Amino acid sequence: MRASVLRGVRDIALVERPVPEPGPREVLVQVTSVGTCGSDAHYYEHGRIGPFVVEAPLILGHEAGGVVVACGAEVTRHAPGQRVAVEPGVPCFVCDQCRGGRYNLCPDMRFYATPPVDGAFCEYVAVHEEFAHAVPDAISDDAAGLLEPLSVGIWACRKGRVAPGSRVLITGAGPIGLVAAQTARAFGATEVVVTDVNPRRLALAAELGATGTIDARQTSPAESGYQPDVLLECSGVPSAAVGGIRAVGRAGRAVLVGMGGDELALPLSHVQNFEIELTGTFRYANTWPTAIALASSGAVDLDRLVTHRFGLAEVEQALTVPTRDEAAVKAVVRPQE
Amino acid sequence: MRASVLRGVRDIALVERPVPEPGPREVLVQVTSVGTCGSDAHYYEHGRIGPFVVEAPLILGHEAGGVVVACGAEVTRHAPGQRVAVEPGVPCFVCDQCRGGRYNLCPDMRFYATPPVDGAFCEYVAVHEEFAHAVPDAISDDAAGLLEPLSVGIWACRKGRVAPGSRVLITGAGPIGLVAAQTARAFGATEVVVTDVNPRRLALAAELGATGTIDARQTSPAESGYQPDVLLECSGVPSAAVGGIRAVGRAGRAVLVGMGGDELALPLSHVQNFEIELTGTFRYANTWPTAIALASSGAVDLDRLVTHRFGLAEVEQALTVPTRDEAAVKAVVRPQE
Amino acid sequence: MRASVLRGVRDIALVERPVPEPGPREVLVQVTSVGTCGSDAHYYEHGRIGPFVVEAPLILGHEAGGVVVACGAEVTRHAPGQRVAVEPGVPCFVCDQCRGGRYNLCPDMRFYATPPVDGAFCEYVAVHEEFAHAVPDAISDDAAGLLEPLSVGIWACRKGRVAPGSRVLITGAGPIGLVAAQTARAFGATEVVVTDVNPRRLALAAELGATGTIDARQTSPAESGYQPDVLLECSGVPSAAVGGIRAVGRAGRAVLVGMGGDELALPLSHVQNFEIELTGTFRYANTWPTAIALASSGAVDLDRLVTHRFGLAEVEQALTVPTRDEAAVKAVVRPQE
Amino acid sequence: MRASVLRGVRDIALVERPVPEPGPREVLVQVTSVGTCGSDAHYYEHGRIGPFVVEAPLILGHEAGGVVVACGAEVTRHAPGQRVAVEPGVPCFVCDQCRGGRYNLCPDMRFYATPPVDGAFCEYVAVHEEFAHAVPDAISDDAAGLLEPLSVGIWACRKGRVAPGSRVLITGAGPIGLVAAQTARAFGATEVVVTDVNPRRLALAAELGATGTIDARQTSPAESGYQPDVLLECSGVPSAAVGGIRAVGRAGRAVLVGMGGDELALPLSHVQNFEIELTGTFRYANTWPTAIALASSGAVDLDRLVTHRFGLAEVEQALTVPTRDEAAVKAVVRPQE
Repeated sequence: MRASVLRGVRDIALVERPVPEPGPREVLVQVTSVGTCGSDAHYYEHGRIGPFVVEAPLILGHEAGGVVVACGAEVTRHAPGQRVAVEPGVPCFVCDQCRGGRYNLCPDMRFYATPPVDGAFCEYVAVHEEFAHAVPDAISDDAAGLLEPLSVGIWACRKGRVAPGSRVLITGAGPIGLVAAQTARAFGATEVVVTDVNPRRLALAAELGATGTIDARQTSPAESGYQPDVLLECSGVPSAAVGGIRAVGRAGRAVLVGMGGDELALPLSHVQNFEIELTGTFRYANTWPTAIALASSGAVDLDRLVTHRFGLAEVEQALTVPTRDEAAVKAVVRPQE
Repeated sequence: MRASVLRGVRDIALVERPVPEPGPREVLVQVTSVGTCGSDAHYYEHGRIGPFVVEAPLILGHEAGGVVVACGAEVTRHAPGQRVAVEPGVPCFVCDQCRGGRYNLCPDMRFYATPPVDGAFCEYVAVHEEFAHAVPDAISDDAAGLLEPLSVGIWACRKGRVAPGSRVLITGAGPIGLVAAQTARAFGATEVVVTDVNPRRLALAAELGATGTIDARQTSPAESGYQPDVLLECSGVPSAAVGGIRAVGRAGRAVLVGMGGDELALPLSHVQNFEIELTGTFRYANTWPTAIALASSGAVDLDRLVTHRFGLAEVEQALTVPTRDEAAVKAVVRPQE
Repeated sequence: MRASVLRGVRDIALVERPVPEPGPREVLVQVTSVGTCGSDAHYYEHGRIGPFVVEAPLILGHEAGGVVVACGAEVTRHAPGQRVAVEPGVPCFVCDQCRGGRYNLCPDMRFYATPPVDGAFCEYVAVHEEFAHAVPDAISDDAAGLLEPLSVGIWACRKGRVAPGSRVLITGAGPIGLVAAQTARAFGATEVVVTDVNPRRLALAAELGATGTIDARQTSPAESGYQPDVLLECSGVPSAAVGGIRAVGRAGRAVLVGMGGDELALPLSHVQNFEIELTGTFRYANTWPTAIALASSGAVDLDRLVTHRFGLAEVEQALTVPTRDEAAVKAVVRPQE
Repeated sequence: MRASVLRGVRDIALVERPVPEPGPREVLVQVTSVGTCGSDAHYYEHGRIGPFVVEAPLILGHEAGGVVVACGAEVTRHAPGQRVAVEPGVPCFVCDQCRGGRYNLCPDMRFYATPPVDGAFCEYVAVHEEFAHAVPDAISDDAAGLLEPLSVGIWACRKGRVAPGSRVLITGAGPIGLVAAQTARAFGATEVVVTDVNPRRLALAAELGATGTIDARQTSPAESGYQPDVLLECSGVPSAAVGGIRAVGRAGRAVLVGMGGDELALPLSHVQNFEIELTGTFRYANTWPTAIALASSGAVDLDRLVTHRFGLAEVEQALTVPTRDEAAVKAVVRPQE
């Protein structure tokens, strides 16, 4: 099969690789669409993310949808022809974290496109049948892949205990902020205010259901007077995170999704005086069923996020399009085209 | 009655005040013991704590126990002679926070010894009958007052979800750290490691049930290799807080009790990668019944913390004893002596 | 003012009563619409509900909306002209249940239309300003009153932890079942199956958002093969409750809202083997803000439930209309017409 | 090796079986002590428990402790010589229930001594290394096995949210009631009242930490006036369960541990009026670390429960001793003696 591999900093090549053989309880998935993510672009630009260093050719891409084309031994959940969304991280299943239902924190997680584990910018992947989630026709091929970032939004809303009537502030209107805004609405939030420095993205946030937007170049959340119950920080920008936390009201929650360096100047006395609960998110656990429900009911529109589509030979362009086109939101790679 | 009032920075005087008249549902409490707290000493030294400024003579003291000597109208819970512990903050009862069970976050809280609300360094106080908690004989007069700092420890353990089998790190072995260590044991924690720079206090922590101690002058928590489920930060020292947070394990909790300035250098990526839940505490709510249960069963020893006792004319000495005697833990004022 | 009073079994009269005087923190509300409830009809038919016996003329009605026309002392939240929804039970505020945020369980609750506390089938009521909730123009007069049954549905969904993606079974399509179905959808449930014996009501359930309906005369929930995460029992019919509980899947919740006698034949081994969490609801706490959010956003349609409107002189007809007209869902009384 | 097998109703024989071969990640455990349980006795008397029928010779026994004597491939947690407690049910690990942290509800659980899965009344068992929990010297061989019933008590306390200051009622002072009483104390409960019809068992409950006992032949819990926060029903006697539920106070919890038939006459209006949360327990999940902590610290005394010890040839006597000796609490089988 053809596979797009990262060989080093800014060095991507299309190579031949053997089609994977599905093991017991694994299905072979023909990949139809793979979203590109900031982490893919970061590996492409820097060859590493923190302690994870690309030391051998690596297939990137972890937002994948496709079709089951073969089943390994003992597979009972799927048959060939089943359209599926791929959950891209398989944990050890048996450690304390896994047994406690927090498999995203498994120290032995094998996660797509994280050295040395290959991702999905290729024609076929083999997936444990429980991590290949059946999707209905109402979910497009692209949307099947984008259930992965939707999972990030769902996890953030769960951590923030977003509920009917919640007032939510979302800092950052990139792909994650835009799914988080939609997810918060689907969780029943009646006020969802989104901040960004890009007016085009704020307009898209409003189109997708945000009840208010703030241009962060002009107004900080704390100045705006808006006092949310929940902050979903999706920008990774320290000043946005700090300003967002300072805005949160009594007994509120602050969920830090965006990665913004090793340290943050936490507004300690505000956190104490208002007993704000703050946490960070690391991927997600048990989110695909909810993601499928929200995407197939139309509560969340993932296709609207897709601004660019590329073939497998164009992964480099897919990863760099945000640097060239400020209208870009989400580029997807279509390995079969 | 006699009352000790703070008239300005380092200016305390004994004055005559009228005995308060208990209103409807209030009881008149003859105060037998009042613990001194760092906040009392801070008002004495600086005349203010943040936005709270002493602008008129103020009675300090908010850790009070006593005896009911008279009952206002409609009182049904107590009769004269009942020994009680005073919960020193009365909220508005009807706002959103109060109705939600979070009365400690009531914006209209009237809290003892916080300008302009008087405290308990005096002979009598009038208290809502539901905030005068009956104590059994097994709780001494001093311990009745010290149910207030015990409440701080209980609240911290609740926020940190300390449970049987928990491994807990407590940074700081002052009065709050020492009650927190005992409370964590009473909540079933099987490992309770306490850090401080004062060996005397570490020895006391061990005597009171800590299973391990770390001299923070020599070893930081993160270096120690100890990976707790829960951090109870009771020192207010930024480096201790940061080091403590960095030590917390996957899905752990960090509860910031100690006041340590407006900002803290939060180890963001650790909080995210391990999905640590961090919060601060602001006083407490619904803790006295638990505090009474723990103190009367002997699970927590409050009397052991009392190192100094003073009369009402000696409040100044009580407030300054920690600066003069490094063996001091908790000084109490006995208004009737 | 005119007031409709229940003087005995099936004996209602229109009488003159003094307009109430709003006390401190109370507002005087001119009542514009009051929904009728099964409990009102039960008092009318039987003169009692369990231990609550009508021993003196009693004003019924507890689903009230209106307009503030005067303010008592210390009122700060409202001004005359403000349209409000009335939360009809005022607790003591200070007991253990109240301080714990569970004010619906306050033993000293004073609840409308529960002997000896009068209700709202009259021209004016005096209400604590925190229990008169401001409503926006998007909420009609009738809907303002019907925020009360909506609160019952919200409380049931909270107790059942209905969340995005939940599969919900609702037994009974009376007014409570119909609001519960809409509320469950607003909480993000993607499957909401409603059972009833009345096809007309099932059709209305489907119109209001139920994703499936079951005619209980033909199929029991357990036979249907549907295995919900959450049961909201709103019929008060024992066989529906038992059948519903037997249908609930592993780790599911069963919330018993409908009143169906003192005992129920609990399917114990199913509850144990599947670790089902079962609870009952008793009114609600802290629900009006959410109810207002859901009704004003259009997520829940309360006006669609109103099938009959009556004047204050016609309360008897309002209470008996369900026995005469099987198309009846909710009759409201308009005291000003 | 020698193994005790149940061949039919009241037909147990000692037979030779091959020593199991530990597979990947499995350890071979030499069994030193196995507690007998009511379910073992039930299989012995009736040849079945509900749908589980003994159709081939079956090794009973699921409360096992022992010593690792060999390690299969990929084992990293243990080495030969390690004393361990055996968690006797291994789930599929990957289904929805398992991934959600509720592996006790896994439909594909393989549980010891449940047809057709063999148990531990034999010399050796092979165990997944994550289900062979290392125990310290402070835990005896017998106590290692009895961590299994202790897990039942821990799970009940977790489900009932027993916490410091809780008031707990335990109906039934058999082995489970006696561990539940101790566990509730270890969770911080300050009142633990135990009921039974056997005065000897009530005396033992008091010796082990119950703060009160009720002779159920003379007084029902509801009559006693005791209003617990939490009921832990451990008798399996319907009248005890119903009486216990009726005693529970507002917002309390009722946890039904004892198996008492398919139906229970639930006091519905009490459950509703007091919003009692009721659930049943099915085994346990993630309890061994807590059990080891409680047993090794001395908070729970398991050895005190052991009244009889037998060899592998005497399993029949072990299973029937409760019918012959009313002083019997827990009989253990020592396969190596």
